[in-house]
Amino acid sequence: MSSYTANTKDMQFVLHEVLKISEAGVPGYEELDRDFTEAVLDAAGKVSSEVLAPLNEVGDKEGCVLENGVVRTPKGFDAAFEAMKEGGWTALDCDPDYGGQGMPYLLNCAVGEMFVSSNMAFNMYQGLTHGAYSAIHAHGTDEQKATYLPKMVTCDWTGTMNLTEPHCGTDLGMMRTKAEPQDDGSYLITGTKIFISAGDHDLSENVIHLVLAKAPGGGEGTKGISLFIVPKFLVNEDGSLGERNGVSVGKLEEKMGIHGNATCVMNYDGAKGWLLGDLHKGMRAMFTMMNEARLGVGLQGYAVAEAAYQEAVAYAKDRIQGRDVTGAKAPEKAADPIIVHPDVRRMLMDQKSFVEGARAFTFWGAHLIDRAHKLDDKEADGLISLMTPVIKGFLTDKGFETAVSAQQVFGGHGYTEDWPMSQHVRDARIAMIYEGANGIQALDLVGRKLAQDGGKHVMAFFEMVKAECKAHDDDERMKPFTDALKNASKQLQAAGMFFMQNGMKNPNAALSGSYDFMHLMGHVCLGLMWTRMAKAAFTALDNGASDKDFYEGKIATGRYYMARQLPACAMHLARIETGADPVMALADDQF
Amino acid sequence: MSSYTANTKDMQFVLHEVLKISEAGVPGYEELDRDFTEAVLDAAGKVSSEVLAPLNEVGDKEGCVLENGVVRTPKGFDAAFEAMKEGGWTALDCDPDYGGQGMPYLLNCAVGEMFVSSNMAFNMYQGLTHGAYSAIHAHGTDEQKATYLPKMVTCDWTGTMNLTEPHCGTDLGMMRTKAEPQDDGSYLITGTKIFISAGDHDLSENVIHLVLAKAPGGGEGTKGISLFIVPKFLVNEDGSLGERNGVSVGKLEEKMGIHGNATCVMNYDGAKGWLLGDLHKGMRAMFTMMNEARLGVGLQGYAVAEAAYQEAVAYAKDRIQGRDVTGAKAPEKAADPIIVHPDVRRMLMDQKSFVEGARAFTFWGAHLIDRAHKLDDKEADGLISLMTPVIKGFLTDKGFETAVSAQQVFGGHGYTEDWPMSQHVRDARIAMIYEGANGIQALDLVGRKLAQDGGKHVMAFFEMVKAECKAHDDDERMKPFTDALKNASKQLQAAGMFFMQNGMKNPNAALSGSYDFMHLMGHVCLGLMWTRMAKAAFTALDNGASDKDFYEGKIATGRYYMARQLPACAMHLARIETGADPVMALADDQF
Repeated sequence: MSSYTANTKDMQFVLHEVLKISEAGVPGYEELDRDFTEAVLDAAGKVSSEVLAPLNEVGDKEGCVLENGVVRTPKGFDAAFEAMKEGGWTALDCDPDYGGQGMPYLLNCAVGEMFVSSNMAFNMYQGLTHGAYSAIHAHGTDEQKATYLPKMVTCDWTGTMNLTEPHCGTDLGMMRTKAEPQDDGSYLITGTKIFISAGDHDLSENVIHLVLAKAPGGGEGTKGISLFIVPKFLVNEDGSLGERNGVSVGKLEEKMGIHGNATCVMNYDGAKGWLLGDLHKGMRAMFTMMNEARLGVGLQGYAVAEAAYQEAVAYAKDRIQGRDVTGAKAPEKAADPIIVHPDVRRMLMDQKSFVEGARAFTFWGAHLIDRAHKLDDKEADGLISLMTPVIKGFLTDKGFETAVSAQQVFGGHGYTEDWPMSQHVRDARIAMIYEGANGIQALDLVGRKLAQDGGKHVMAFFEMVKAECKAHDDDERMKPFTDALKNASKQLQAAGMFFMQNGMKNPNAALSGSYDFMHLMGHVCLGLMWTRMAKAAFTALDNGASDKDFYEGKIATGRYYMARQLPACAMHLARIETGADPVMALADDQF
Repeated sequence: MSSYTANTKDMQFVLHEVLKISEAGVPGYEELDRDFTEAVLDAAGKVSSEVLAPLNEVGDKEGCVLENGVVRTPKGFDAAFEAMKEGGWTALDCDPDYGGQGMPYLLNCAVGEMFVSSNMAFNMYQGLTHGAYSAIHAHGTDEQKATYLPKMVTCDWTGTMNLTEPHCGTDLGMMRTKAEPQDDGSYLITGTKIFISAGDHDLSENVIHLVLAKAPGGGEGTKGISLFIVPKFLVNEDGSLGERNGVSVGKLEEKMGIHGNATCVMNYDGAKGWLLGDLHKGMRAMFTMMNEARLGVGLQGYAVAEAAYQEAVAYAKDRIQGRDVTGAKAPEKAADPIIVHPDVRRMLMDQKSFVEGARAFTFWGAHLIDRAHKLDDKEADGLISLMTPVIKGFLTDKGFETAVSAQQVFGGHGYTEDWPMSQHVRDARIAMIYEGANGIQALDLVGRKLAQDGGKHVMAFFEMVKAECKAHDDDERMKPFTDALKNASKQLQAAGMFFMQNGMKNPNAALSGSYDFMHLMGHVCLGLMWTRMAKAAFTALDNGASDKDFYEGKIATGRYYMARQLPACAMHLARIETGADPVMALADDQF
């Protein structure tokens, strides 16, 4: 069974010593002193360990079941969902006008990491609701907000996002779902949507579907797409639930992982829907939530990796096998714990250095979103827009790799379903795919974000890295960090230069290297995070921090990342500089 | 459902144009002319596509069931097993003295690739039998051989290998299973073995277990271990089956993949067993089969990747989504097939260039084994001994990565169990773990094989690479291959040098880099293979080969590998050269 303990200590370190949030001057951050965030994180950690983690295996083994048109979630999910609602965890960063607690998004992310680590599939019911809440909050009429938001803040009603159709996922322009306007201002929605996470279930009274569909007159492709609110049960004027709408579950997908979440085929048969936002501006409405949604998936990538890492560490300390080559470490036992072996340590260090770097990166991203929203900070907005595909793509690729590495520590035992490792690997896999497959993230990064606002944001990023390195010029201890970061940043700039020089003539010369660019940039970002964390750790030690083990461990883990992970940057650059030819050389029938 | 077509064309290319087997002067190879191998490969391909592939999904979905102490295999497995027996596929490279066909091991590998690609879990029943057959063939008395081998060659009786126990896998010295000598020369075997593939099932009349156990007087650790033959049903003097032996299935493991194969906990309760080979020399007896067994697992790594790649290519040609950025390729359709997109092509090229390189590498390895056995070629024996951990470790790591990449091509569809991609990924995962987890392969390579016979074999390998590059000095077209290969080989040598200079003082300095060394060496080996294949392809084109598409595609695929995969070598070297410090810096409780 999955055992998970939230790493609140590291979260506190990132929030208060790296991001220094209470000094950040962001409205809503004033309250976030050490004691307050510790109390919130401890409480969330307790729910994660005691309520969610024990249900993670249950969800995987039992899965969801479709019976007589209704989805039944795994045993215990309903009680846990009630506990989440009662604890106010669904409302943390929601608008107080609608019953939310008005906390910063950053705090919601920190808490979200725990919920995902302990039970990713379960957390999606609330996560999808939050996405739908944000869409209605941003684009709804006052009446729509009043009708739906209070119930969604509490998760009495949950939400979904309906984009994909059987024949179109990435290319939404091919969408077939239709919206026919009615005299009363509503629309009749007809079509089939697939891969709808939390599409139906028994955890809430109502499900509020947000559905992309084509209404007449919008033109070809994505231009004609609008966004609609389609509740499972129609809502009466007094807010009570009325009759069942014309939406039903066609099928429950059998999938590799996240079995505890109901992935549904949804059939809309003339279902009543109401326009959300402007007619024919549905794509734009979806995109406004994309940074948050994608950051949330990047978070899933490393949060599952964190859970897997914790299991691997515990196993490596417990399992005895072989002897330390430099001399027995546990001579009283028949063998040493496998954590003594350098290759086991390599795996654990890969995992630890990734997860902690990813946590800092994601929290920083969430902080940028708060700055953008609360301070209307355009630079933060531009920066997070640039970073979003990296957070999503890099962290989910590496998160999966980390889960696989953690599974490897278990040897044959990790392959059996008696241990939680198979589930972590299978669950982590989806994050590389949904919310825009990682190849699409790379395309977004190289094809759109690099050049956004005349390349201003990527230039600002390079300046930020440069300034970070310069700031530590006087600290000899920081050299392993700043030297490696400078070098990696130069390689990233060289890759960007290659795209500029070659991508104009031949877009394929840039697109062939887009995936490598995303990874190269991911390493630079984690290198930047490790540089900041190392400085914060040195500062704490200089100030006589009592917990030397933590800070020294932090510095050593950072050194590992700089020394052993950043060399990937040169590889990615070398690949990028081969351009389009190697990738595009074959004719289709030569494959 | 899984659709698979054996790539006999590429196999023929490797056998006849790269390895030039009919000119190789190995006894038994004389018969292997183009027509003969084509006939065998075509016939095996037909069985793979028509009999095995259709059962792959069945095996995954249905799995094995333990009922009243007996394991039932998935529906259709029994008929397919009969077809394999009747076709003589179980006997291909077995000794004619015991009913085998006496074909070279190399041919068995080529055919084996197809069987694994089409149905890995199914093929293990026969694969394990082959391993047990080899052990008895190498170490059995004449009587033992006469009793067991004819039935095992036909797979009327199948075999297993019993090493692992709940508390010991890698560290077999901790083994607890006991063998008590009886007056009649037999032993009573008592203990529990786990992870026993094909441990019990309904495909054969008898199961011949080879069991490692400790007999009195052998001393501590692995020294006291002996190998025993323990049949499920005792064999009467006339060869008929007698009473049930004291061995039973304790449990069937639930695992991430290879569901069609029965992974059993085997309980030995005073089961009657007979010593195989010398008393207390059981480890040595196991090790003599290890090269073949590990090569067989390396083969699984790329064979599953081949199956996944085939699915990905078919999907990428069929699925339409988005437009080619350089202009529509299928203007008559609503969108272009996704194979037009550079990032999809990158994934397919990664897959193709790996699988074809891995095939050549594995066939070459099998050829070395044939040379070692049939010609008593010591150099070949030393070389394959060196290569074995690379074939096993590198090809299974990259095979899994390739299956994941092929799954990625499918987007969300690849995550559902409606398509075969999840199964390929889940099946491929085990090959990184069993038959010595890949970290153990790296340890074997760096801790044992590099220094074997005074480092003679690794020096011979470097000379071979050098000679290969030199041989193409006069061919300008080969420069992209030889330049990249020379560079990678230099990096590998530098890594070896680092180990020599640092590993003596501190073994952890070498062991911290062992995994990277294994991967670095894997890339050099595949670089060598691609150099040979490119030359063979240029030669064919020079000689006016009609199938220009194939040979030009081969060269382009090789160029891709050299340009886009070999840059990983510098990364591995950089990691290796950081030595032990980054890996070993943390105290246990800092994890």
